[in-house]
Amino acid sequence: MKPESSEERETDRLEAFSDGVFAFAITLLVLGLKDPTSGSSVSLFQGLLGEWPTFFAFVTSFTTILLMWMNHHNMFNYIRRVDREFMLLNGTLLLFITLTPFTTLLVASHILSSDANTAAVVYAGEFFLLAIAWNILWRYASSGHRLLGKDIAPNQVRTITRQYWVAPLFYSLALVVAFFSALASVVTIILVAAFYAVTATMSE
Amino acid sequence: MKPESSEERETDRLEAFSDGVFAFAITLLVLGLKDPTSGSSVSLFQGLLGEWPTFFAFVTSFTTILLMWMNHHNMFNYIRRVDREFMLLNGTLLLFITLTPFTTLLVASHILSSDANTAAVVYAGEFFLLAIAWNILWRYASSGHRLLGKDIAPNQVRTITRQYWVAPLFYSLALVVAFFSALASVVTIILVAAFYAVTATMSE
Amino acid sequence: MKPESSEERETDRLEAFSDGVFAFAITLLVLGLKDPTSGSSVSLFQGLLGEWPTFFAFVTSFTTILLMWMNHHNMFNYIRRVDREFMLLNGTLLLFITLTPFTTLLVASHILSSDANTAAVVYAGEFFLLAIAWNILWRYASSGHRLLGKDIAPNQVRTITRQYWVAPLFYSLALVVAFFSALASVVTIILVAAFYAVTATMSE
Amino acid sequence: MKPESSEERETDRLEAFSDGVFAFAITLLVLGLKDPTSGSSVSLFQGLLGEWPTFFAFVTSFTTILLMWMNHHNMFNYIRRVDREFMLLNGTLLLFITLTPFTTLLVASHILSSDANTAAVVYAGEFFLLAIAWNILWRYASSGHRLLGKDIAPNQVRTITRQYWVAPLFYSLALVVAFFSALASVVTIILVAAFYAVTATMSE
Repeated sequence: MKPESSEERETDRLEAFSDGVFAFAITLLVLGLKDPTSGSSVSLFQGLLGEWPTFFAFVTSFTTILLMWMNHHNMFNYIRRVDREFMLLNGTLLLFITLTPFTTLLVASHILSSDANTAAVVYAGEFFLLAIAWNILWRYASSGHRLLGKDIAPNQVRTITRQYWVAPLFYSLALVVAFFSALASVVTIILVAAFYAVTATMSE
Repeated sequence: MKPESSEERETDRLEAFSDGVFAFAITLLVLGLKDPTSGSSVSLFQGLLGEWPTFFAFVTSFTTILLMWMNHHNMFNYIRRVDREFMLLNGTLLLFITLTPFTTLLVASHILSSDANTAAVVYAGEFFLLAIAWNILWRYASSGHRLLGKDIAPNQVRTITRQYWVAPLFYSLALVVAFFSALASVVTIILVAAFYAVTATMSE
Repeated sequence: MKPESSEERETDRLEAFSDGVFAFAITLLVLGLKDPTSGSSVSLFQGLLGEWPTFFAFVTSFTTILLMWMNHHNMFNYIRRVDREFMLLNGTLLLFITLTPFTTLLVASHILSSDANTAAVVYAGEFFLLAIAWNILWRYASSGHRLLGKDIAPNQVRTITRQYWVAPLFYSLALVVAFFSALASVVTIILVAAFYAVTATMSE
Repeated sequence: MKPESSEERETDRLEAFSDGVFAFAITLLVLGLKDPTSGSSVSLFQGLLGEWPTFFAFVTSFTTILLMWMNHHNMFNYIRRVDREFMLLNGTLLLFITLTPFTTLLVASHILSSDANTAAVVYAGEFFLLAIAWNILWRYASSGHRLLGKDIAPNQVRTITRQYWVAPLFYSLALVVAFFSALASVVTIILVAAFYAVTATMSE
């Protein structure tokens, strides 16, 4: 029903919309940073020092969203067409991306409290679901070469499929760790980000 | 007065601006999610459980805006030109889109209180007005083939016109239901989203 | 120093950046809408009724920013090149655009209080400065045909220059009125928007 | 591994994503402006006067981000390719850009309090780190002509490299000054912005 020539345009618009959501979600993280002296009598210096978990969580979330954007960017080098199912799956991915400022706020506010484990479970759980969403999205696009360009070789597809399954494993580990140590869970998540940052730059 | 060649560029810019508003409104929904323990003595776990209406409303609004973006995207496959009237009508549509984070917040905060019906009426009412705005926008663009491409067949236009009238019917139902049961109204709205998600993926 | 071919690309990027700021500022207006029942014992229905100035200001600001975006869009139909000075002047315009959610909040919160006139002066004053910024931007771009396309006729330029000078006159009227009646000043501003909406659609 | 023809598209997408973050961060600055009368008994007029440091910091940050966006825009006139390392370095730059609304809020809230120096150190420190990030980004892109177009002459590269080293010097001065006088530090930062605005428009 659609003219052939509009396929590329649709793909571009989905990319642009996704980029917008990534860019806003990553910028909204800053709203989690609060003036530590409001309603408190500590000095600004002490307040900022005491807020280290907030900055730690900010950097973790920022880096993770940045790497996920880079990953999204990279996935779209292989995708030539989009359909409604793909848009909905991509939307599910974006839903979890937009949740990140909220889960980051939770983990930053509670990592030093008795609710630390609950917050870390929510935080790690969200990244776990994000990783699952990535895999479903990629499987949908790549199975039977459904939405890929004709020039993409099957072994390229297999390599990416293999790389994608690593993330849910890591994040499920972070999720299990969260029940025992919130800090160890967040550190695991930042290690995943660091791992991807390093391997991504090497694998090119 | 305008050079012919700039028509496509204007259409693209209107699309890009609309995409920005859609992407931003969908991301702003996350600001409705609050730390349930601030100013309260419940544990984070209990607090998050008690916040289920907020998450429910978040997912409903996110899905609805996502589907509306997909619909907007789809409509622009048929539109080749824009004029000032169309921009203003599109702006009215965007006004209601940007209201969604506010009405979502209202329904999430009040669905368990005595104000539940008022909140649900506002929520369903906004989606009803959105659906009306869609119809006016499409009617303006399609009547007499005003802004459509020459390659679009009249029966394609009629099919879309018919599909568009379904949404106001559904949302007026949700609006009537809201006076009796807030929860049933929100459930109706998410059912509309689910219906569109399923039919959209099938109708392609 | 710059290659000739990059001129169009630079103009496009300035447009895209400006579109982003317009789209975000227009969407951020929604943050001015607050749940009227928080920290108060009124019902939601009464609270929303009592909040009518907020909705009135929301619609006024939304419409004004939308029309200014349309105007920006239209101006760029004539502009083929940008330089540093133009970018800075355009930035000044965007600074006033991003201030709109703040001045809208002020006028909405105070229009029924004893501070109504101060708020209306700030609100009308901001739109007055915006109109001045538009004129400076256009004068810079058009004087000596500096940044315009070669195909733009001098009488087209003169027509636009004349149209642009109407806005500061209207807004200076709204500014003077603000010292006597806040409501009349806001009504003047929405009448300006309505006037532009109607003439814009006719003048095409 | 990547097809040659996708290089330009990747560069464009990185630019668009960065533009989104710049546009969003510059618009979020407005959230630092608060109604001065909430929870206080001063009149709106007195309140706004008393809030002058907030407006001062708003204009300083807006101008600085605007100039950095223009600089980013200018840098991408020379860059023809991007790789993963460049994306991560660009992401680091964006991280500091998104921090600006937070550091601006801190300096605006504390410039008249006993915490003024701490706030100014954080503010100047962030701009210093931003300037360092710019230099690393440019050095990575330009060393050995890694990501530059073939048409860019070595002396053009050297000129830019020289210009870029000026900013860290200025901002380290602002950082040192911040320990003695918060206001003098912020004034230094706005003078840097003014200097760049003037020289940028002249150097073209």
